[in-house]
Amino acid sequence: MTIGIIGVGLIGGSIALKIKEKKTAKKVIGVDHNPSHLKEALSLGIIDESAPLEKAIQKTDLIIIAVPVDSARELLPTILDTLGNTQTVMDVGSTKAGIVYSVKNHPNRSRYVAFHPMWGTENSGPCAARLNSFSGKAAVICNAEDSAPDALKRVKKIAKDLDMYLIFMNAEEHDMHTAYISHISHITSYALANTVLEKEREENTIFQLASSGFSSTVRLAKSHPEMWVPIFKQNRENVLDVLSEHISQLRKFKSALEKENYDYLEELITNANRIRKILD
Amino acid sequence: MTIGIIGVGLIGGSIALKIKEKKTAKKVIGVDHNPSHLKEALSLGIIDESAPLEKAIQKTDLIIIAVPVDSARELLPTILDTLGNTQTVMDVGSTKAGIVYSVKNHPNRSRYVAFHPMWGTENSGPCAARLNSFSGKAAVICNAEDSAPDALKRVKKIAKDLDMYLIFMNAEEHDMHTAYISHISHITSYALANTVLEKEREENTIFQLASSGFSSTVRLAKSHPEMWVPIFKQNRENVLDVLSEHISQLRKFKSALEKENYDYLEELITNANRIRKILD
Repeated sequence: MTIGIIGVGLIGGSIALKIKEKKTAKKVIGVDHNPSHLKEALSLGIIDESAPLEKAIQKTDLIIIAVPVDSARELLPTILDTLGNTQTVMDVGSTKAGIVYSVKNHPNRSRYVAFHPMWGTENSGPCAARLNSFSGKAAVICNAEDSAPDALKRVKKIAKDLDMYLIFMNAEEHDMHTAYISHISHITSYALANTVLEKEREENTIFQLASSGFSSTVRLAKSHPEMWVPIFKQNRENVLDVLSEHISQLRKFKSALEKENYDYLEELITNANRIRKILD
Repeated sequence: MTIGIIGVGLIGGSIALKIKEKKTAKKVIGVDHNPSHLKEALSLGIIDESAPLEKAIQKTDLIIIAVPVDSARELLPTILDTLGNTQTVMDVGSTKAGIVYSVKNHPNRSRYVAFHPMWGTENSGPCAARLNSFSGKAAVICNAEDSAPDALKRVKKIAKDLDMYLIFMNAEEHDMHTAYISHISHITSYALANTVLEKEREENTIFQLASSGFSSTVRLAKSHPEMWVPIFKQNRENVLDVLSEHISQLRKFKSALEKENYDYLEELITNANRIRKILD
């Protein structure tokens, strides 16, 4: 089939590389408002050709929206307006309730599949795309009951090509879980970077002393605001909820240290250690 | 030379592997209060023999203290008491002011070198030791002027064997910088783990949805309290200072979201992005 990818960056590009390798996409058409990204994507073999949005939609069986979540939410209704009843559109955004709600009553709603592959890095642009990025990771499909069976089948095939395992949930559940497991990590990391930049005025010392532990904790702080501000905006309530909890957890550490209550400090750390059993 | 390593875990073990490979250590004698660690270290080729502390001290040219910082601080004066004037003792702890202060007026002070290799992982024990762990990382020597030239020379040789670059600072500076660059990352990570464990009651969902970003940010939360409670205790004031700053940085994100001030949110994220230029 012919696949159109709107946004040929980290996620769109990585999907394109894999579905081309798997030969699911006979042809990949790239759409991007950034001409240098299109040029780069062409030269990296991520896309076969580029086209303006309307042209690309006409020519494709499946459209993958891989732009920041606010733009995706604006784009989706327009795309559905012109979509034929054999065409499918999916998005790959990290928030789902807003975009699903935006097309709730759209006559072509069933052509849309809400998809979220649980992978990303702090990098962006076509040159950040990697072939086997998604392997072994979870892909969430939200509100599957609102998508047509053939549209779902097509997206499931994409997930299979990407070597991901599927999880089904509703959009609200999804946004709550991603706030807990993904979005708060980014805020933690941004705030840690700002803390260190505020306290440690000697940038050279940060560079010299940075251990792998620090680099690992602060890695997500390199992620761009173009992608993350819209995510936090769309998932504002859940993110605020978990952020309040996070601040209160940090206050427990502060209180333990202030009161020199090292038994309590040990208890807090031992509880945190439970994450090893869950993740390993 | 013959080298004694007190604490044959992650750090002590990794040092031993490398200095044996470099043939700087003709023989490595291990000391550990955990008999199964000694057995494991012997079978992994980390040490050549084990001995009780007093015996090991008698037989070695260089003693490396690689136990939690509170135990190191207790041990050091006792070791210095019995040390001959051709012998050297170094520690590898993540806090320095306390241990340096504990031997400030010791008649054998000059036989001690305060050393901190800026590397570690969330794992522990001899089986976590790795040969080339320290390569390319910073090693800090504190208060070098209080160590005898021959003792310093010996420790510099160890750093060279480990393929580390040396930085010199005083112990107070060191503790401030490590609070900013290393210790706060651990608290952040512990608190993030506790946040997620508190909010996300479905452990299976954490496992299924955990992306590489989450795993990276929460990795340090697997680190043991035996090692980290003493570090936070010894570096309490600096850690409290940076922890207060971190909470206030998180509050800025909270306030931006509460007030739906997305320009401010973008500003906070753009500032955090500066860490990329410093680290990369």
